[in-house]
Amino acid sequence: MSTRPRLFVPTDLMAGSPVALDESQSKYLFKVMRLNVGQEVRVFNGRDGEWLARVHEILGKSAGILKVETQLREQGILTDLHLLFAPLKKTRTDFVVEKATELGVEVLQPVMTEYTQSDRVRVDRLEKLTMEAAEQTERLNMPRVLQPLHLIKAIEALPSDRRVYFCDERGDSEEEDWGGDDNRARPMADVLNEHKKGTAAVLVGPEGGFSPQERKMLRKMEGIYPVSLGPRILRAETAAVAALTLFQALCGDWRAAADGSGVDE
Amino acid sequence: MSTRPRLFVPTDLMAGSPVALDESQSKYLFKVMRLNVGQEVRVFNGRDGEWLARVHEILGKSAGILKVETQLREQGILTDLHLLFAPLKKTRTDFVVEKATELGVEVLQPVMTEYTQSDRVRVDRLEKLTMEAAEQTERLNMPRVLQPLHLIKAIEALPSDRRVYFCDERGDSEEEDWGGDDNRARPMADVLNEHKKGTAAVLVGPEGGFSPQERKMLRKMEGIYPVSLGPRILRAETAAVAALTLFQALCGDWRAAADGSGVDE
Repeated sequence: MSTRPRLFVPTDLMAGSPVALDESQSKYLFKVMRLNVGQEVRVFNGRDGEWLARVHEILGKSAGILKVETQLREQGILTDLHLLFAPLKKTRTDFVVEKATELGVEVLQPVMTEYTQSDRVRVDRLEKLTMEAAEQTERLNMPRVLQPLHLIKAIEALPSDRRVYFCDERGDSEEEDWGGDDNRARPMADVLNEHKKGTAAVLVGPEGGFSPQERKMLRKMEGIYPVSLGPRILRAETAAVAALTLFQALCGDWRAAADGSGVDE
Repeated sequence: MSTRPRLFVPTDLMAGSPVALDESQSKYLFKVMRLNVGQEVRVFNGRDGEWLARVHEILGKSAGILKVETQLREQGILTDLHLLFAPLKKTRTDFVVEKATELGVEVLQPVMTEYTQSDRVRVDRLEKLTMEAAEQTERLNMPRVLQPLHLIKAIEALPSDRRVYFCDERGDSEEEDWGGDDNRARPMADVLNEHKKGTAAVLVGPEGGFSPQERKMLRKMEGIYPVSLGPRILRAETAAVAALTLFQALCGDWRAAADGSGVDE
């Protein structure tokens, strides 16, 4: 039963309300999944939880109507986690956005850094990706994709109590360093041990990392916690997935699921 | 200086020994990176650590010779971590292989399961990917890519003391379940807390997960530890990256780097 197709729809959801399907949803349900009138679908809109719905009418192969029945899951609250990332090449940016959605990120903030090579971010394209990933990953909402900001502006835009975990991937391999071992970024799992309740953001740079100036500046800013992700140099998109995984597993909703106290996202 | 190009070469490495470059390496060094005679390169062969070498001779644009100088890093010992994974669609399999290399996996074992859709695995192609990823990620060796095996055969082929962390991604969302909450897979971070010294493997299934029969069988086998990766359904390749990250961060060489006791891979 959990294999019922699952769709994001923009309309309000309550028992008895109709849902008009757009062309691609209709194609998916009626052509690809070959559903007939009366068969079950799950729908969510990012606000009202997840609902069971049934195919009510098929209007050709590119339109149709569902009828909403009962609520399956409440909306609940997600871990409030942001990702600040420098845009990469197309496939790798897509990858970051898809994975961040699976890993429960609430806000995706593209940031422009000195070494960022891609200066164009198509927010609408990325939003479409978050929708598809949310459908697939059983999320009840989508992350918001913000307009790109310059690195420093993006950090200044965060509330001051949000901890920023700064993945300083190439930092410690540089020879011009921070005056000895004292300043080396500590393993992220150790730093997260000290994470109190509260909101967090993960910051990952572009291929090639942050510039020495950026690193110096970041390390001086309050609320920025440099973290290390092991002895190998991870690619930017790997660092993003790894850091988000560690946050969710050690401080986020992978834990809550554990003791049944249930952030039911 | 850490931006010196870095190449995998098959030859033995010692001070003074020459290294003949193949065509693609020569193109990379002389066309892309525009290196001249006398400039520095780093080389590794998976056995002798990492060495500083210098361009000794450029023979046109598709051949050349390096001369090895001094050792930069010793070979050291890697965390002995295996990944058993069901082949996915081409790009996603490539992704798993690239990321597993970055995350320090030693052995990549493709496994055939009931829901595995791709029955062909080109081991030579995957080996090439591990080589490129190892060059980029500052690894000193490459993971071995084994020939595909049937799931159960692959598990039986492991030494009996190797713990297998079984990412039962869709398990707990099924309605035919394991007789209540007692049998739900526990969060991977909790299960890893009980990991003693020793070797480990991570097992991830195909898109669609494992079949009910496979899951039942796996859960009965000794040395198999079902683990959960949070409340959302992760795609297969995301589960692989997440599980490998958690192992390295909590039990593997991301920790060793922490206390300076230095697995210097």
